[in-house]
Amino acid sequence: MPTIAEIAEALGAEAAGDMTLRVSHASEPASAGSSDLALALAPTWAEALGQGRARAAVLWPGADWRALGLQAAIFAPRGRLAMAGLTRLLDEVPFPPGVHPSAIVDPTARLGEGVGVGPLTVVGPGAEIGDGTRIGPHVTIAAGVRLGPGGVVHSGVRLGRRVVIGARAILQPNAVIGGDGFSFVTREPAYVEIVRETMGKGSLPAIEDPTWHRIHSLGGVTIGDDVEVGAGTTIDAGTIRPTRIGDGTKIDNLVMLAHNVVVGRHCLLCGQAAVAGSSVLGDRVVMGGRAAVGDNITIGDDVVLTANTGVLSNVPAGRVMMGYPATRMDLQIESYKALRRLPRVLRDLAAGVPKRSKGD
Amino acid sequence: MPTIAEIAEALGAEAAGDMTLRVSHASEPASAGSSDLALALAPTWAEALGQGRARAAVLWPGADWRALGLQAAIFAPRGRLAMAGLTRLLDEVPFPPGVHPSAIVDPTARLGEGVGVGPLTVVGPGAEIGDGTRIGPHVTIAAGVRLGPGGVVHSGVRLGRRVVIGARAILQPNAVIGGDGFSFVTREPAYVEIVRETMGKGSLPAIEDPTWHRIHSLGGVTIGDDVEVGAGTTIDAGTIRPTRIGDGTKIDNLVMLAHNVVVGRHCLLCGQAAVAGSSVLGDRVVMGGRAAVGDNITIGDDVVLTANTGVLSNVPAGRVMMGYPATRMDLQIESYKALRRLPRVLRDLAAGVPKRSKGD
Amino acid sequence: MPTIAEIAEALGAEAAGDMTLRVSHASEPASAGSSDLALALAPTWAEALGQGRARAAVLWPGADWRALGLQAAIFAPRGRLAMAGLTRLLDEVPFPPGVHPSAIVDPTARLGEGVGVGPLTVVGPGAEIGDGTRIGPHVTIAAGVRLGPGGVVHSGVRLGRRVVIGARAILQPNAVIGGDGFSFVTREPAYVEIVRETMGKGSLPAIEDPTWHRIHSLGGVTIGDDVEVGAGTTIDAGTIRPTRIGDGTKIDNLVMLAHNVVVGRHCLLCGQAAVAGSSVLGDRVVMGGRAAVGDNITIGDDVVLTANTGVLSNVPAGRVMMGYPATRMDLQIESYKALRRLPRVLRDLAAGVPKRSKGD
Repeated sequence: MPTIAEIAEALGAEAAGDMTLRVSHASEPASAGSSDLALALAPTWAEALGQGRARAAVLWPGADWRALGLQAAIFAPRGRLAMAGLTRLLDEVPFPPGVHPSAIVDPTARLGEGVGVGPLTVVGPGAEIGDGTRIGPHVTIAAGVRLGPGGVVHSGVRLGRRVVIGARAILQPNAVIGGDGFSFVTREPAYVEIVRETMGKGSLPAIEDPTWHRIHSLGGVTIGDDVEVGAGTTIDAGTIRPTRIGDGTKIDNLVMLAHNVVVGRHCLLCGQAAVAGSSVLGDRVVMGGRAAVGDNITIGDDVVLTANTGVLSNVPAGRVMMGYPATRMDLQIESYKALRRLPRVLRDLAAGVPKRSKGD
Repeated sequence: MPTIAEIAEALGAEAAGDMTLRVSHASEPASAGSSDLALALAPTWAEALGQGRARAAVLWPGADWRALGLQAAIFAPRGRLAMAGLTRLLDEVPFPPGVHPSAIVDPTARLGEGVGVGPLTVVGPGAEIGDGTRIGPHVTIAAGVRLGPGGVVHSGVRLGRRVVIGARAILQPNAVIGGDGFSFVTREPAYVEIVRETMGKGSLPAIEDPTWHRIHSLGGVTIGDDVEVGAGTTIDAGTIRPTRIGDGTKIDNLVMLAHNVVVGRHCLLCGQAAVAGSSVLGDRVVMGGRAAVGDNITIGDDVVLTANTGVLSNVPAGRVMMGYPATRMDLQIESYKALRRLPRVLRDLAAGVPKRSKGD
Repeated sequence: MPTIAEIAEALGAEAAGDMTLRVSHASEPASAGSSDLALALAPTWAEALGQGRARAAVLWPGADWRALGLQAAIFAPRGRLAMAGLTRLLDEVPFPPGVHPSAIVDPTARLGEGVGVGPLTVVGPGAEIGDGTRIGPHVTIAAGVRLGPGGVVHSGVRLGRRVVIGARAILQPNAVIGGDGFSFVTREPAYVEIVRETMGKGSLPAIEDPTWHRIHSLGGVTIGDDVEVGAGTTIDAGTIRPTRIGDGTKIDNLVMLAHNVVVGRHCLLCGQAAVAGSSVLGDRVVMGGRAAVGDNITIGDDVVLTANTGVLSNVPAGRVMMGYPATRMDLQIESYKALRRLPRVLRDLAAGVPKRSKGD
């Protein structure tokens, strides 16, 4: 149980009141117990504080902690940043060091200092696990995988052949890294190739030999430092070079990154986002929930794709894109608004009614 | 093998003919064998009955079972409801009671009466499993998890720290409950915050320190009674309070529920649906396949989001919403229809052609 | 390490130069080492060849291999098809034959010649595994499953009850086949049924008994020969007949196929695609990334659904469909273009500006 002084120091934040008070959990103000640290990051939470029993709280700058009935307070100028420091302080690594007796670790695998390998986890021949990395139960690590130090690998994660991951990785349950890419070819030009020519006009001809020939994935996956991969997310192996994820990039749940994709550094890929084969994302790209990028597309640095956006062509650096097909956000919003007005406009046109002003 | 009388009684349905006839499986009429119960819930199935060899069938009300060549019949006024009772009667619990010798159950875990723990399943310290709950192979149950009575947990399910689940849960294979939330913050305002101000106008500035600081998830997940969670679905832990799912809610495959989300009671969330962080769904909400709700949004009771709908703002109770951005279904359909007509209208306008009537 | 002659023969391709040269890996031209086979399938790669150290390459037809500084060359008229043969030649089966001592194989299961069962894999009673099929670690195979010869099953795959799979299947990590279908019914007409009547007009009434009654899945899944299933993909069991996937169909990651779905032969279903309950796809159907088909819909043979397409009604054979609601691709593109122009057109109409020509 840290003291208020210790928490304030860890957060680099100012504090007031009883610095020796100890707290065990963070809580919402109304449900806080007497040993909890209530999080009241804006004045709207003031009333709720009175409903709970917290003696200490994290407050907005300038709050009158005594009037709020508290014995101690920490002041957080940028609330969510304080949350990062605070929740980290109150969290603990979920898996212990040491190799559980039921784990199956190949004698040729090399485990660093303080590594943890959970129950029933399999570590293949020649795999290397860096110092202090903790691996949960039921994880599969293929032969030759290299996993850096200081990481946390949750249950059910699958790391395939030729996967290399940097330091401090956090891999959520059932993430799959290094499955085979989805790459098939027919002897004759396939429908996808025909459609690119015809743009969908006319009817598709019968194809003589529809057999899909498989292109195998020999390239693996290379992931930088400080990357998080969400639950159930899949990152496929490249064909002859690795699929790549840059340092500091965070990936949410059920995201799909196809073979040969390159994702830059410090990107944020939200839930169910998808990037198709061989596309390239720059640095600091944000993909909102379920945003998607087609195959063989280049996205510049500092691009934001809002939730649900589907990108069909290259996007220059710094753009904010929205909708399907993806368009600059401000133009897309104009289109959406115009579309809402359209049924009435068409009725008016049909009736010969005089035109209305824009703000109708 | 139940008799016709037993099935009719279990379904609360009327029956006729040889009540002592026994059936082993339910079948479609055309492929039914002589010991099968054919399901012919509407007159359109009458002909197919003649192609199969069933001696007994579930029929639409008023059907002439003798003329259909049957020896016994059950009459189902609401066909799909009868299917529920019937398939339940013919199904069996897929996992036996008892702890498989290969399972790793911590000595401090408490298992109720008649609990089953499958091969190679891990149950952590202090976990509690209610009476009669059957757990399949390869399941991971973290320390301290509480799982109510009468449930079924399929293979590969991951239950993380601070997960509490009520009675009669059904968890499909590889579902992940209690992974960490996806919650990150930069020191400076991040792009997402900037975009909310600019609505996408202009180019995004270079950000000085793009490091994503992680907000840890300390809140766990609390799930009510009679909840089903689909294969590969992920439900993330809350930040400082639990993510919550209400009683009687059913969740399909590959659905994503983010941290702090609250889902009401008796909701139905179809395949690939998603709810982003901290959003709240009322009771009896239906999300069609791949419907999505953005973050920090409130959806009232009795709302239907049709398949593929993307909600960007609060929805009052009782509404039916469609499309992206989500709009009242009837208005959205008008917009879609108008959009179909638009290319011709624009051509006509350009050519100075007289306006057409609405039904063109 | 195969020779150039052996590779050329395996590919059915012409070759030139030192036929006895041996290569170990395929590489991109610029990063190729001296024992690599560089892949330079088009003239655009010529310059990169000079940057690498490859002595042999796969080249476009008619390339002057000597001028490119090579000692041997293979000529590939259809580049990606050559890639298929080549990567297959350089790949190896990821799992060895033999049953790992930690695997739990029921004594009544029948394993063919040369079958491999990985560490901590569970094979249930009465399951049958065909000759030469290799199964990785942590796989769950339920009682009675039948899996054909020559397949590869990656880690974490779940095969449920009543699953039958043909020859040469490739199942990627954490795929789930045979989970229960998502099929529920209320005593009264449910919202979904009401909405189909009202098309979303008015407010939904309070439903008296919102309890969802479960229709159990008794039908299993039947999959043909030469089918691949991607990582994290889920294929649900049918209700009273099997969900079916035809020969030669390839399915990408995180795809969802619901209960009773029938997919034809030689289809290609890209990442995150979804088919809702009881829908039927013909042969050679291509679903682009995240394309979706609603429930109870029929898609003809040789249909292409472009990425992101959402189908709400039947599609005849040979069509190329795009967008939501899905429309013939050429018409949909017209609509998108018209929508882009619409804000300006409405402004012009409001201002009484004379109409512009189509190409404004």
